[in-house]
Amino acid sequence: MTALWAPEAKFRIWFEIEAHATDALAELGVVPKEAAAAIWERGAFEVDRIDAIEAEVKHDVIAFLTNVAEHVGPEARFMHQGMTSSDVLDTCLAVQLARATDILLEDLDRLLEVIKRRAYEHKLTPTIGRSHGIHAEPVTFGLKLAQAYAEFARNRDRLVAARADVATCAISGAVGTFANIDPRVEAHVADKMGLTVEPVSTQVIPRDRHAMYFATLGVIASSIERLATEIRHLQRTEVLEAEEYFSPGQKGSSAMPHKRNPVLTENLTGLARMVRGYVTPALENVALWHERDISHSSVERYIGPDATITLDFALARLTGVVDKLVVYPARMQKNLDRMGGLVHSQRVLLALTQAGVSREDAYRLVQRNAMKVWDSDGELSLLDLLKADPEVTAALGAQDIEEKFDLDYHFKHVDTIFARVFGEAA
Amino acid sequence: MTALWAPEAKFRIWFEIEAHATDALAELGVVPKEAAAAIWERGAFEVDRIDAIEAEVKHDVIAFLTNVAEHVGPEARFMHQGMTSSDVLDTCLAVQLARATDILLEDLDRLLEVIKRRAYEHKLTPTIGRSHGIHAEPVTFGLKLAQAYAEFARNRDRLVAARADVATCAISGAVGTFANIDPRVEAHVADKMGLTVEPVSTQVIPRDRHAMYFATLGVIASSIERLATEIRHLQRTEVLEAEEYFSPGQKGSSAMPHKRNPVLTENLTGLARMVRGYVTPALENVALWHERDISHSSVERYIGPDATITLDFALARLTGVVDKLVVYPARMQKNLDRMGGLVHSQRVLLALTQAGVSREDAYRLVQRNAMKVWDSDGELSLLDLLKADPEVTAALGAQDIEEKFDLDYHFKHVDTIFARVFGEAA
Amino acid sequence: MTALWAPEAKFRIWFEIEAHATDALAELGVVPKEAAAAIWERGAFEVDRIDAIEAEVKHDVIAFLTNVAEHVGPEARFMHQGMTSSDVLDTCLAVQLARATDILLEDLDRLLEVIKRRAYEHKLTPTIGRSHGIHAEPVTFGLKLAQAYAEFARNRDRLVAARADVATCAISGAVGTFANIDPRVEAHVADKMGLTVEPVSTQVIPRDRHAMYFATLGVIASSIERLATEIRHLQRTEVLEAEEYFSPGQKGSSAMPHKRNPVLTENLTGLARMVRGYVTPALENVALWHERDISHSSVERYIGPDATITLDFALARLTGVVDKLVVYPARMQKNLDRMGGLVHSQRVLLALTQAGVSREDAYRLVQRNAMKVWDSDGELSLLDLLKADPEVTAALGAQDIEEKFDLDYHFKHVDTIFARVFGEAA
Amino acid sequence: MTALWAPEAKFRIWFEIEAHATDALAELGVVPKEAAAAIWERGAFEVDRIDAIEAEVKHDVIAFLTNVAEHVGPEARFMHQGMTSSDVLDTCLAVQLARATDILLEDLDRLLEVIKRRAYEHKLTPTIGRSHGIHAEPVTFGLKLAQAYAEFARNRDRLVAARADVATCAISGAVGTFANIDPRVEAHVADKMGLTVEPVSTQVIPRDRHAMYFATLGVIASSIERLATEIRHLQRTEVLEAEEYFSPGQKGSSAMPHKRNPVLTENLTGLARMVRGYVTPALENVALWHERDISHSSVERYIGPDATITLDFALARLTGVVDKLVVYPARMQKNLDRMGGLVHSQRVLLALTQAGVSREDAYRLVQRNAMKVWDSDGELSLLDLLKADPEVTAALGAQDIEEKFDLDYHFKHVDTIFARVFGEAA
Repeated sequence: MTALWAPEAKFRIWFEIEAHATDALAELGVVPKEAAAAIWERGAFEVDRIDAIEAEVKHDVIAFLTNVAEHVGPEARFMHQGMTSSDVLDTCLAVQLARATDILLEDLDRLLEVIKRRAYEHKLTPTIGRSHGIHAEPVTFGLKLAQAYAEFARNRDRLVAARADVATCAISGAVGTFANIDPRVEAHVADKMGLTVEPVSTQVIPRDRHAMYFATLGVIASSIERLATEIRHLQRTEVLEAEEYFSPGQKGSSAMPHKRNPVLTENLTGLARMVRGYVTPALENVALWHERDISHSSVERYIGPDATITLDFALARLTGVVDKLVVYPARMQKNLDRMGGLVHSQRVLLALTQAGVSREDAYRLVQRNAMKVWDSDGELSLLDLLKADPEVTAALGAQDIEEKFDLDYHFKHVDTIFARVFGEAA
Repeated sequence: MTALWAPEAKFRIWFEIEAHATDALAELGVVPKEAAAAIWERGAFEVDRIDAIEAEVKHDVIAFLTNVAEHVGPEARFMHQGMTSSDVLDTCLAVQLARATDILLEDLDRLLEVIKRRAYEHKLTPTIGRSHGIHAEPVTFGLKLAQAYAEFARNRDRLVAARADVATCAISGAVGTFANIDPRVEAHVADKMGLTVEPVSTQVIPRDRHAMYFATLGVIASSIERLATEIRHLQRTEVLEAEEYFSPGQKGSSAMPHKRNPVLTENLTGLARMVRGYVTPALENVALWHERDISHSSVERYIGPDATITLDFALARLTGVVDKLVVYPARMQKNLDRMGGLVHSQRVLLALTQAGVSREDAYRLVQRNAMKVWDSDGELSLLDLLKADPEVTAALGAQDIEEKFDLDYHFKHVDTIFARVFGEAA
Repeated sequence: MTALWAPEAKFRIWFEIEAHATDALAELGVVPKEAAAAIWERGAFEVDRIDAIEAEVKHDVIAFLTNVAEHVGPEARFMHQGMTSSDVLDTCLAVQLARATDILLEDLDRLLEVIKRRAYEHKLTPTIGRSHGIHAEPVTFGLKLAQAYAEFARNRDRLVAARADVATCAISGAVGTFANIDPRVEAHVADKMGLTVEPVSTQVIPRDRHAMYFATLGVIASSIERLATEIRHLQRTEVLEAEEYFSPGQKGSSAMPHKRNPVLTENLTGLARMVRGYVTPALENVALWHERDISHSSVERYIGPDATITLDFALARLTGVVDKLVVYPARMQKNLDRMGGLVHSQRVLLALTQAGVSREDAYRLVQRNAMKVWDSDGELSLLDLLKADPEVTAALGAQDIEEKFDLDYHFKHVDTIFARVFGEAA
Repeated sequence: MTALWAPEAKFRIWFEIEAHATDALAELGVVPKEAAAAIWERGAFEVDRIDAIEAEVKHDVIAFLTNVAEHVGPEARFMHQGMTSSDVLDTCLAVQLARATDILLEDLDRLLEVIKRRAYEHKLTPTIGRSHGIHAEPVTFGLKLAQAYAEFARNRDRLVAARADVATCAISGAVGTFANIDPRVEAHVADKMGLTVEPVSTQVIPRDRHAMYFATLGVIASSIERLATEIRHLQRTEVLEAEEYFSPGQKGSSAMPHKRNPVLTENLTGLARMVRGYVTPALENVALWHERDISHSSVERYIGPDATITLDFALARLTGVVDKLVVYPARMQKNLDRMGGLVHSQRVLLALTQAGVSREDAYRLVQRNAMKVWDSDGELSLLDLLKADPEVTAALGAQDIEEKFDLDYHFKHVDTIFARVFGEAA
């Protein structure tokens, strides 16, 4: 990913754009075919030399063209005919973003694959579902991962759409009127560079496209933060249901030899903040003045590489974390059991209402017993208390109550959900 | 749009979700059909009463259910069976966002229609294209509007995608496992409320959906800022190529009776900042803890209404501005002519290179004459100077040079661009 | 706080600014003293009437002046002499922000007082300090609160500075030149309204002042999020060291009667996102065009009230949460003990190095025993293992090792820190 | 500025912190004085070697200590006694930010000096003041610069406050309790490194400090954008009252040889967006979990260098732009005159009300003549029209009216404002 944003790669794309454009101009009879051939044959550039020329002319594309002309010779004057710098710069950015996106899509594919494997591995591993950080009702660890899979699958779709948004080619001249360049040149270059034609450009490709692109990266980063936060929570000492892999020789703290910290997912949380931070500058880039101003350019010089490289790194890191995540099913079960059966309170509530108790009374009956269990820190058992509560037993028999404390009851639709998410028969 | 977010509307949607869900439960034999019928027949609520109950129980959905039960009677206990509050709240938000989006899509349609009309009206009205705020080469005012049309058409597509992202229904129970509610209830409610089924929910609908939605609104707001900024620039005293409609009786300044200010587009610029400002909170909402925490809720109580109402208002205001925009073609022509023909410099450059002059020499020849015109503030004429420059005339005849100063030359591809944007034959 | 931003309050401030300015003009002999007196005597306005006039003239200050003139009569023409609307609007905003800040400062004072009380209450309540969510070493709950106290005390200082930044008065006329109004009018109004004089205004008070103000609110909001997040973590089922007060009659979940959720601090987390979200629009407001454009105005109409009202509400809510927070010292001790003494690993490490073992070897010795305890989920005791490790006992005697497991050792500097934070003798 | 953030510089600061801490420990008798001396004498490190060790232990501070120990020998075990990594990392960041701020303060001083010089140079250069982009009333170019001076002087004060906020030293051990390190070590290191003591740390220095710091940089960046935007406006072809210096050999466009674009100030506009973009991640860094998590670290690795280096570059660039700005007083006068005297409308309005005409009538009389001038594009003269309007002349004599069109009238308080801003006697 880093190589894609290096000067060498950028100038190579510039060269290809210019050379393909000259081919089209030659085909149209605007310039000699020999000139087009000469550019491909002798065309070359040196990053240092371009920098040296730019220091004088203070214009990067002119510096590049001057350097290429030093290699090509007189035929070079047929390059860039009727084009403006932005034709090269914006089309190059489109190529870079498209290629960066292809890498990010591969990253997502790998992540999805790993999440899916772990999801099936733990499809029926019981664990407590938590809302507000408080024990709610049982879920499976596989369901948690299925949710993550669905979220990243959505992100993949969004990224494909975002790629289409930015992968356009503009070769339309000084203010986008094609005054000095035939639209067929644009069509040819677009085809060769794997882009679509920008319907209307104004020297530049409109920046709402890039805004949408970086906003999409911001959403993906937020999803990374979500899964990273989940893992950080699971690794908390009191929870410890899963743990980042801790390699032999690794040290968790310079002071405390006992530490094993979720540093990778904490790091991902910070990286997500950065990728999100690039969204607003991209949105501010949209309102360029008239046919264009160049304020977007410095922003893109930062966020083009920074956002894509950071996201690439983050996706790879997250994939590694999920791949090697150490999962502790026994601890999950222990945590699930620690609240004296409170997690079954809803089923009792429903059974009471089914048995004719009003919703308000049923809620009151269950809540008063649940609060005792809660206050005992799980020492008391909700089942025992309910069976000893005459108002409850007036409505439900002991066995009826016991039935409500069955864990498997909660997992009967896991297949349904997996089929929805992973697209296979339930 | 405001009505959509009022408590009355919200509770009505809650009621429909609950009633449809009870229908499905009745159909599945979980609750009596009479109960479902009773809910539709006698179901009612009062906003004040709900508020009063909520003050005690500190839970909005329980307050609502209690109030409805006061009207329905004992059958009310069959409502909400196996559901959790979020099933109601999140599905309601999906309905509200879907309906808000429908209004925004209508807004965009009206805006597109108005832009298109004005674009065709000024398809061939010459005006100067400006890059960096500096005169570049001629464009038409219609082309400026065609660009805006294409941008808002893209935004329309994005909004359709964003609508699909948030228009999902979750009726999956306490932690999304369907433990106490059959998935067919969800399917029924989704169908009745015009939503799709959420493949995997975790008590809540995942917030990456909403993040993408509000990010999309932020992009649209940025496009509004772009067009508003264009108009503000055109209305500057020194430019004055177009002006917001100034109604009889209107006063521009309490101190200066001569003022006519572009206050609507300035206002739109500020509103765009607000809608953009809502993007980051929405992105921060994604990383909820475990199966859900409720931190997203207060954010959405602000940005749900604020972002959609503000954008609705802004789109309508922008439509009015474009619709009634006072355009001054004579002034456009005057500005176009004011720089002594500098806007034709490129064509001379190209002609010189075509005539065998090297690109570097051609650039130098044109630039040295152009800078004289520039420094004369348009008093000198580039055409005259070029015809008097022996190095230029050595390569080009006087008539060749004169030909390069033809305005229509720049507009030969306007039809092509209009066909691309508006989808009609060139 | 809400009353401060109501139209009635705003127009009352406008009236005072205009009346004080007319006083100063009368004192300077520019207008008759009777006129100034008449304005104070008969000056009045009606919000509805102002709205009706504004609908026609589309200018709020002109509408206000017209309405006041209806009450004052002909002398009203001496009002607003040489002033521009922004003199009134910007000075009014300064008054509103200054008054809003006074409320926020009182909020902070109450919060600081409550935090201090709870900090002293739990000055020596032992609890585990956690880095990365993992048990580190013992702290006291009072120390946690002392940190919060210091942070909000800093925020108080910042808010005082931010208040000074925005509490300036500009009565400088159409473009800030005092062409038609003597600077002494400004000085008089500033004095009467409790503001300082704006050294140089350009029709408007420069918006870097407001940007700094709202950025400061964003920092305070982030500190609220920090303390709210701490409490949410402490209330997690597995941790449960503290809990938001749960009132009789309160219901935690419509589906699960056993739930007690940290909904107030989750709500605060969301509110913090909103207040932070207002920072960027305020920063974007700085770069107004030339002497001013009005794009800042719509932004401020939102964020002026929204940011201050939200922060006021959030500070009051946080104060209530801390005030009534239910703290469980026994549970804190239980959690502290649950990791088999791992929290003392550093002291053993230091003792080993002091006894001549190299840092690397000491680290290895402690880590290998700590990892066993870790893997036993706290069933094994670090102390026992160390005493059984011959490499350890070669350097340290059993009693030396036991001494390192003393809890009080960690609290010997609590007095020092409290003295630093609360400013009292240790 | 870049050197400050290089690994070499960072490790040098780490070394100094460790060595000073060991000095203090030796002074307190905790470690041998010879050890402290040995560290200063033989202490050394190699960036490559540290990287190699870190690859294994995955902990940067441990890697650093290991490498230093390779040079120092056995005495190295007395380094870092009772400290935790964050003591080194956070104190180092404080030193880096303090030093970076010193560079930024020098940048601001140079900018202020240049603005002041140009302000005095153009203290009485008349130019049109514009509100909403529309001609309002006359100002001087010096006044525009005085405003910029006042704004950057405020920013300097803010930056001094922000520096104090982050320049604190924490050497407080694993969770900030000083359990294993005497607070006097912290005091010693703070003194030696030019910092103040952090009153209460929790392994880390609290991040509200850094949030406030980066928010302050965001405000400064916004002020840069404001002045840059002013210059971009002034250089617009139709305005052209000032221009960025255009060096010999410079090329404005690859296609259009006539172009001279304000590329430096456009670039500054983009850079401002980036520095602003770093504010939100810094705000999100505040709410670390419990005593600390490490999510802030990756954010700071980006924004520490990026925000300060970008701002340093931007301030220097802006200084250069203002220093060499080409100002065109003749063009300013020409623009001032172009609207047929409309800029004097307020004075006539005031004269009419002073002459007994009601405010509403006076406004109507001036506005109806002003609108004629406006519609004539400045061809008609407001003075002529007013003198021909019988309703006007009924109240004011011809000479009275003429007097109101005096330019110098507007500048009588320039001295007052300059004295306020630059602190000298008027």
